Amino acid sequence: MSVEKITEQKCCGGHVATYKHRSEVLGLDAKFAVFLPEAALQGAKVPVLYALAGLTCHQETFLTKANAVRFAARHGIALLTPDTSPRGAQVPGENDSCDLGTGAGFYLDATQSPWAEHYRMGTYISEELPALTEALLPLDGVRRGITGHSMGGHGALVHALRAPERWKSVSAFAPISNPSVVPWGQKAFSAYLGTDRARWAAWDATELLKAGHKHPSTILIDQGDADEFLTRELQPEHFEAAASQVGQALSMRRHAGYDHSYWFIQTIIEDHLAHHAQILKA
Amino acid sequence: MSVEKITEQKCCGGHVATYKHRSEVLGLDAKFAVFLPEAALQGAKVPVLYALAGLTCHQETFLTKANAVRFAARHGIALLTPDTSPRGAQVPGENDSCDLGTGAGFYLDATQSPWAEHYRMGTYISEELPALTEALLPLDGVRRGITGHSMGGHGALVHALRAPERWKSVSAFAPISNPSVVPWGQKAFSAYLGTDRARWAAWDATELLKAGHKHPSTILIDQGDADEFLTRELQPEHFEAAASQVGQALSMRRHAGYDHSYWFIQTIIEDHLAHHAQILKA
Repeated sequence: MSVEKITEQKCCGGHVATYKHRSEVLGLDAKFAVFLPEAALQGAKVPVLYALAGLTCHQETFLTKANAVRFAARHGIALLTPDTSPRGAQVPGENDSCDLGTGAGFYLDATQSPWAEHYRMGTYISEELPALTEALLPLDGVRRGITGHSMGGHGALVHALRAPERWKSVSAFAPISNPSVVPWGQKAFSAYLGTDRARWAAWDATELLKAGHKHPSTILIDQGDADEFLTRELQPEHFEAAASQVGQALSMRRHAGYDHSYWFIQTIIEDHLAHHAQILKA
Repeated sequence: MSVEKITEQKCCGGHVATYKHRSEVLGLDAKFAVFLPEAALQGAKVPVLYALAGLTCHQETFLTKANAVRFAARHGIALLTPDTSPRGAQVPGENDSCDLGTGAGFYLDATQSPWAEHYRMGTYISEELPALTEALLPLDGVRRGITGHSMGGHGALVHALRAPERWKSVSAFAPISNPSVVPWGQKAFSAYLGTDRARWAAWDATELLKAGHKHPSTILIDQGDADEFLTRELQPEHFEAAASQVGQALSMRRHAGYDHSYWFIQTIIEDHLAHHAQILKA
């Protein structure tokens, strides 16, 4: 296991650090960032909240822009922020658009050539990164939660529904809620998973609900009603309808005037940390 | 007066907006950003805190990274964040280094060719920007405060000491405290102000104190003791000694383990907004 700490800076009584490591799953070097609260620096095993960023972002975006650190510090929770895709896979065209390839890994395991070799963020997030970071840092894998924004909000929902035993709490900011039926999702799923839509359902949060996957906790979703991607790409009402249909506990809140940006996320971030703290520390 | 609103996004009940305008003082187009709290959107004139960023930054850096918006919203104070230098002055060499020229205007008025024509951030900050924004937006010029980081922390101290009647409250994060005696300051002052050091004193916070300038309020300064620029560039003890000598009220706090970054600023930002609110709203 080759892991290198690139940066470490004190923040809110704890440390924000960036790491680089060799990922066996991705077959490439990968980076992640982490906030460790003060208790973790003193050796206590702390709960950890994964935060998955959206299209075009990287491992530091959420930590820099979400204003989450002070609330993670208050609750004594670590934040773990992975990258949004493999980097340097050298797949032809991977840097040509913002919604496929670099920065757009969709937190799934590609099955189609030429993506399948490296674009395996699904297993990276669900298995390799927890194993690596919980061996390296004082993180309590029993108290692991997941959140995210947009593509990453969908990633959080999908991972929590696919493996509720791995993720004790879940929330999302303006998630792509039903990628199989919107342009961003159709483009990515066609490339990564092929044209057989039966395969798409395993990586689509709304379809997972319909297929009987549920999460034992209440899912918290916040959505701005002035979000420029609301109708075209996000479709939260699809997820809401499916949750209602199958009895998934869901707190879906809409916020007048807010758009898709981190200005919206920072407005409501305190509630998300409180949501995860309540479940992870119960 | 030509002013164009480029962006406007809801955040913490108010708006974050970016503006572009023709600056008569700079002789160039310039940008600034602003957070207006909810009361201002409803038409109330609110207090305004200017936040000056450091070397290499721009008008959005502080708003994005300092985590200040939620506290400004709480206190009902606007945040106004100017750029750190003129842009596009086309002075030979202005883009060659991070500590002179673009991104490094030092919030002063240059007197030396070829800088003097455009590098006039001193008058821009003290006169043009207040006049323009207080005509445009519901900002109360009687309740105007100033803060900043590094080069911008020094800018805040200098402007408050040069014109205490314009700036009712003042604070700084890790300011360059005595630029006349450190490399960053000597390089910039030599270029902008020439080799006659008598001219430097008018733009050096520590020298202003020594020359009898004072501010009627307590100045709040926070400084990390693991700041990588502490000894070479910042020299807070020079400002502290001068304040003590002339009886300037000063709260200088040192913080174990913190560096020069916005991770430090976000850790203590709440105290600065409270400091300004207490004075501006008294």
